[in-house]
Amino acid sequence: MPWFRNLVKFSVTTIRTQSSSSSALKSSSNFAVLNDKFGFFHFSSATTATATAEKNDSVVRYAGLKPTKGDEKPRVVVLGSGWAACRLMKDIDTKIYDVVCVSPRNHMVFTPLLASTCVGTLEFRSVAEPINRIQPAISREPASYYFLAKSTGVDFQNHEVFCQTVTDGCDSLDPWKFKIAYDKLVVASGAEASTFGIKGVQEHAIFLREVHHAQEIRRKLLLNLMLSDVPGISDEEKRRLLHCVVVGGGPTGVEFSGELSDFIMKDVRQRYAHVKDYIHVTLIEANEILSSFDDRLRIYATKQLTKSGVRLVRGVVKDVQPEKIVLSDGTEVPYGLLVWSTGVGPSPFVKALDIPKSPGGRIGVDEWLRVPSVQDVFAIGDCCGFLESTGKPVLPALAQVAERQGKYLAKQLNKFGEAGGGRANSTKDIDLGNPFVYRHLGSMATIGRYKALVDLRQSKEGKGVSMAGFTSWFIWRSAYLTRVVSWRNRFYVAINWLTTLVFGRDISRI
Amino acid sequence: MPWFRNLVKFSVTTIRTQSSSSSALKSSSNFAVLNDKFGFFHFSSATTATATAEKNDSVVRYAGLKPTKGDEKPRVVVLGSGWAACRLMKDIDTKIYDVVCVSPRNHMVFTPLLASTCVGTLEFRSVAEPINRIQPAISREPASYYFLAKSTGVDFQNHEVFCQTVTDGCDSLDPWKFKIAYDKLVVASGAEASTFGIKGVQEHAIFLREVHHAQEIRRKLLLNLMLSDVPGISDEEKRRLLHCVVVGGGPTGVEFSGELSDFIMKDVRQRYAHVKDYIHVTLIEANEILSSFDDRLRIYATKQLTKSGVRLVRGVVKDVQPEKIVLSDGTEVPYGLLVWSTGVGPSPFVKALDIPKSPGGRIGVDEWLRVPSVQDVFAIGDCCGFLESTGKPVLPALAQVAERQGKYLAKQLNKFGEAGGGRANSTKDIDLGNPFVYRHLGSMATIGRYKALVDLRQSKEGKGVSMAGFTSWFIWRSAYLTRVVSWRNRFYVAINWLTTLVFGRDISRI
Repeated sequence: MPWFRNLVKFSVTTIRTQSSSSSALKSSSNFAVLNDKFGFFHFSSATTATATAEKNDSVVRYAGLKPTKGDEKPRVVVLGSGWAACRLMKDIDTKIYDVVCVSPRNHMVFTPLLASTCVGTLEFRSVAEPINRIQPAISREPASYYFLAKSTGVDFQNHEVFCQTVTDGCDSLDPWKFKIAYDKLVVASGAEASTFGIKGVQEHAIFLREVHHAQEIRRKLLLNLMLSDVPGISDEEKRRLLHCVVVGGGPTGVEFSGELSDFIMKDVRQRYAHVKDYIHVTLIEANEILSSFDDRLRIYATKQLTKSGVRLVRGVVKDVQPEKIVLSDGTEVPYGLLVWSTGVGPSPFVKALDIPKSPGGRIGVDEWLRVPSVQDVFAIGDCCGFLESTGKPVLPALAQVAERQGKYLAKQLNKFGEAGGGRANSTKDIDLGNPFVYRHLGSMATIGRYKALVDLRQSKEGKGVSMAGFTSWFIWRSAYLTRVVSWRNRFYVAINWLTTLVFGRDISRI
Repeated sequence: MPWFRNLVKFSVTTIRTQSSSSSALKSSSNFAVLNDKFGFFHFSSATTATATAEKNDSVVRYAGLKPTKGDEKPRVVVLGSGWAACRLMKDIDTKIYDVVCVSPRNHMVFTPLLASTCVGTLEFRSVAEPINRIQPAISREPASYYFLAKSTGVDFQNHEVFCQTVTDGCDSLDPWKFKIAYDKLVVASGAEASTFGIKGVQEHAIFLREVHHAQEIRRKLLLNLMLSDVPGISDEEKRRLLHCVVVGGGPTGVEFSGELSDFIMKDVRQRYAHVKDYIHVTLIEANEILSSFDDRLRIYATKQLTKSGVRLVRGVVKDVQPEKIVLSDGTEVPYGLLVWSTGVGPSPFVKALDIPKSPGGRIGVDEWLRVPSVQDVFAIGDCCGFLESTGKPVLPALAQVAERQGKYLAKQLNKFGEAGGGRANSTKDIDLGNPFVYRHLGSMATIGRYKALVDLRQSKEGKGVSMAGFTSWFIWRSAYLTRVVSWRNRFYVAINWLTTLVFGRDISRI
């Protein structure tokens, strides 16, 4: 055994110094003498040219990536890491471009499965794809980067993006500002949950758009389940703690309600037997639930949800307080968990950009997804919309729209690059080709109890297959399983579904 | 299709009301009219007798579980949910006893594998076992409970435990106080990480004892990796951010250092190519690392760790500041991540109990793990130690000690119960049987790079097998895989190991 020979050698040096412990600190050859070894803290000359390039400039807080030179690849800067951004980064030709991604999260969220993670049907990590699993060049190529930051503004004239690091959960670090010069800029920074200016939503409700939202919902739900079991809690308080209110009857709200009722019927009944009769789910919607779906499907969903114990309530929320919401007719609804899912609107970053907007306040784009008033800037996903002048309607804020736009734009940029138009201000003479056309593939939503809706019509008035029930649920699962980006997560989603079936949902509150 | 028939019916009712939208709120039969449906908020009479029993007492904040009556099972109250508590709850005969568990976490942590979760080798949930997976009677039996609470004191005379709910992460809820009468009380509330009174440890260092610690370490590590890649960060700051310092060279500190170096060598090099030369691990220990192990193994570990790039430094920490630690010889060590793992000491709850203590300040127990000065109270795990009068040494704070004690005490309590001594003050005439005897089965530790140490000697001077290397690593993994409590987690640990091997560690910061 080779290690044994080494042991003998070490026995001589270490163990001896161990016995003469007073001199151990200096003489041991295994335990480093600190001052020698800590040489790596001495300031050494910069090894990454760009990183410290502007260190001695007067605007030291605005160091960053300088414009690309002739011997470097042109640089595409992508703001965001959602469906649009990630599809673009996946398809872009990294032999032509260096890619720099700026986003406050280093992963893409597979949003259609996010609701399942709140109750433990799926694991959080199974729905998160790290950006460099989607585009490995970002960690491999010397001039491609991912920056954990948000963009604070753009200087369209000088082709520069201003950024600021995000350190949420780590307040000891000051945010760091820097700027990045771009050859092409793709704004794919998404939208923001709408609160319609209702007081208290930001403070007391939980959205369902990011993994940390799902984590918060799960922690709160389990906390309420456990607290309501404590002796001395009044029946009224118990009912409040265990009242889960979902505001918004779109696919997200409905899917979450369905998952919740599954969790209650299968897991809470077994594992929280003492409080199982106190837990209820209420879904509040101002109009109709699942308004984009076929009427038959909507009625089916309404019936199934009601059967599962979800109370469907038509109402408009006026005010959100820490333990109750107030509807416009004055009704007070106490809650223990409040999930808010009433659609999205433009983010403050998009609002602040000084460029023409589409109806609804999104970044206005032409039919080739370009921001027409400036050079080399494109917008895709929930943050963009067709300008009124294009005569096209603003597309809905859907994953499939975003993904299709990302795919289209990657192709366009690759084409520009191949034709020698990758650099800033160099695409003027290149043929733009076909404009972006969106063809709706249909919608799906699960409603719990192994049931789902599948609506394959191209529009609400169009013809096509629409179905509901177990078969649809099977289609729903199969479709999303194949859509999950990486093999790793595809594997984990399948395994999670299997273990949920066999062992039930995990309820450890970690 | 049966749902289709229903759809037709619904088309008539809902869709019609939908078109006459102004009256929809009141006439729709599917959308509940809120005031009617919200009848469930009206205060209804108590359905669980104990929960509201003391509601109208003068001490309303001290409602709780009253002493058991003749027609009820005697009640064992278990404080804690670690190795000792969970083994006891697993083995206790729930036909004889009702079990009430009080703990600030609703799961047991499989501590030997916790270090692996910090870098993503294992998932967090794979090392957490919910208490009611360990003992299903706790959620099934009407008078068995788990309470998310900490115990604040014990009235040994009146057989009562005082508790207070824990609502960490949810400050909007005031803690709720209650008390529980016990027939038998098992204190298994564990110990606390020692800081030796060093300033700044609590504020700036992260311990490695709970799942949320591992989560914090992972988030911080990934944050630092990403921040250090941002343009304009100086080399010095980059080295600081990426300097991971581990204080304490026991098995936890060594295993964590090994996992970290694995992560750096396999995953950071590939996925954070820009900063891979800046990341370093330093392990600081005042004496020898792994002091309980065989000298040969220790030297082997020292060599292997050094080979993996872990700097072993002998030193004593004097002061911990936000971005650096100061050693007793004045050396300053900047760090980005500081993990503290220097052993454990008695918790404030144990310190405050007015009963005789063992050397080291733990709850003093006799050879049958009873707290001798009072009736029906037992202590197991890291919170207890043999009284000096027993002539036995205080056992080390190890999982195997705790688990063996839990197993022994469950057997004792079952025996008492069978002999009719389950009630409070009724065990006087029952034969105690054999006292608890601890036989050390040996120690294991992994040191990274598919290497581990296995030391099967009963004591440091004893004879027996001690080995190191790949075979040991295989033994280590196999042994722990079979020890994982539930089949679900055994399955997940195996799957996690497999995917780490195939796909590498997941790096999404969620």
